[in-house]
Amino acid sequence: MGYQEQAIEGRNAVIEAYRSGRPIDKLYIQDGCQDGPVMTIKREARKHDTPVKYVTKERLDQMSETGRHQGVIAVAGAYEYAELDDILKAAEDKGESPFLFLLDGIEDPHNLGAILRTANLAGAHGVIIPKNRAVGLTATVARTSAGALNYTPVARVTNLSKTIEELKKSGIWFVCADMEGTRMYDLDLKGPIGLVIGSEGEGVSRLVREKCDMTAAIPMKGDIDSLNASVAAGVLAYEIVRQRLL
Amino acid sequence: MGYQEQAIEGRNAVIEAYRSGRPIDKLYIQDGCQDGPVMTIKREARKHDTPVKYVTKERLDQMSETGRHQGVIAVAGAYEYAELDDILKAAEDKGESPFLFLLDGIEDPHNLGAILRTANLAGAHGVIIPKNRAVGLTATVARTSAGALNYTPVARVTNLSKTIEELKKSGIWFVCADMEGTRMYDLDLKGPIGLVIGSEGEGVSRLVREKCDMTAAIPMKGDIDSLNASVAAGVLAYEIVRQRLL
Repeated sequence: MGYQEQAIEGRNAVIEAYRSGRPIDKLYIQDGCQDGPVMTIKREARKHDTPVKYVTKERLDQMSETGRHQGVIAVAGAYEYAELDDILKAAEDKGESPFLFLLDGIEDPHNLGAILRTANLAGAHGVIIPKNRAVGLTATVARTSAGALNYTPVARVTNLSKTIEELKKSGIWFVCADMEGTRMYDLDLKGPIGLVIGSEGEGVSRLVREKCDMTAAIPMKGDIDSLNASVAAGVLAYEIVRQRLL
Repeated sequence: MGYQEQAIEGRNAVIEAYRSGRPIDKLYIQDGCQDGPVMTIKREARKHDTPVKYVTKERLDQMSETGRHQGVIAVAGAYEYAELDDILKAAEDKGESPFLFLLDGIEDPHNLGAILRTANLAGAHGVIIPKNRAVGLTATVARTSAGALNYTPVARVTNLSKTIEELKKSGIWFVCADMEGTRMYDLDLKGPIGLVIGSEGEGVSRLVREKCDMTAAIPMKGDIDSLNASVAAGVLAYEIVRQRLL
């Protein structure tokens, strides 16, 4: 594991990086470039919310390591995702019941970074995120994770509810966060557990919620709708920690 | 209470706003303006990290409500801070033991917004922040507080450790977050309480820590140093909620 920024130079390489789903953190495009491939890249950048900076050819020449940037340089995250099995093995190696975080569509990199810190310090063995409609391991996530990304493995899966089904076969129970659930103190959260946290706007999606064994509610006394997603993850994770320490 | 953006127009008004410590969220300056007062404003903007946008005179004329912008319009937060007494009275009116948050130098507006959400939903009666070396109630804080700013009063004080001393006279106990403290589950956090959260980088300052009655530690199993400040505030606040619900 580990995180390092990597430059991808040239039109085809950048288009290919987008198509393979690789997270691009930043894009430099030469001022005035308007041809087909560059327009394709701009379209991908819009689709993926990549910040674009227009610079002179001289600036790109300076930045280029290969000397063949063709007017485009992308800065990509080079973080290696873990496999599900690696995460389960980490728990086994420590002789602990598995404790996983599953994030159903966290979109804000600051939230993902803060949740990775929590997962690390709460003693979770890994974090599972979906490939689509969620932020990946960008440079901002790496920075806001305060180093947690170097210790806590992150796996990326195509279908979160299928992954839950598979993991249930290893004896893991799943609890999802939802205001309509049982008060978290009244649930038994001691065994092998997967904590499912929903997205900032929508919460946990229906398909994923239906796969969960328990629904945990954080008691709320106030006037507004919900806690920040990373705070909610922290409060629930530490209820699991408390019960495990008892 | 409540939050509303307010435009401040004209050179002296904007300089005065900076000098009075009022948070300026954004600054519009007319392209090409280089005279003394405008240079002073630019210097203040740099000092306070205000985003500056250079626009045409026509654009400023359009934005101006007074017609006398003199090349400068600032957008300021117009949030009204509460008084300490208002916060204590809120607890009294509800017939509850006071539950306060004291933030010793939170600098990131996203963290302050998230903490205000937590304070609201954990049932705290108010939040106390220092005047210096801390973010105030800016537009970003208002946005990330998801409405909490409209319900949970925020007071701003000159000296946090003096405020703690005063509040102790009302029978409030103070607990500060620190890794070196007693495990939070082993403390009695049920009575009238002030929860003191340190800044992102430094934690709780020595002077403030010395005034606290208890030091609470969140159990940490991982490899990195600390939780995100707003997550730590959430975890501790909900330990207080749990004990109060028992």
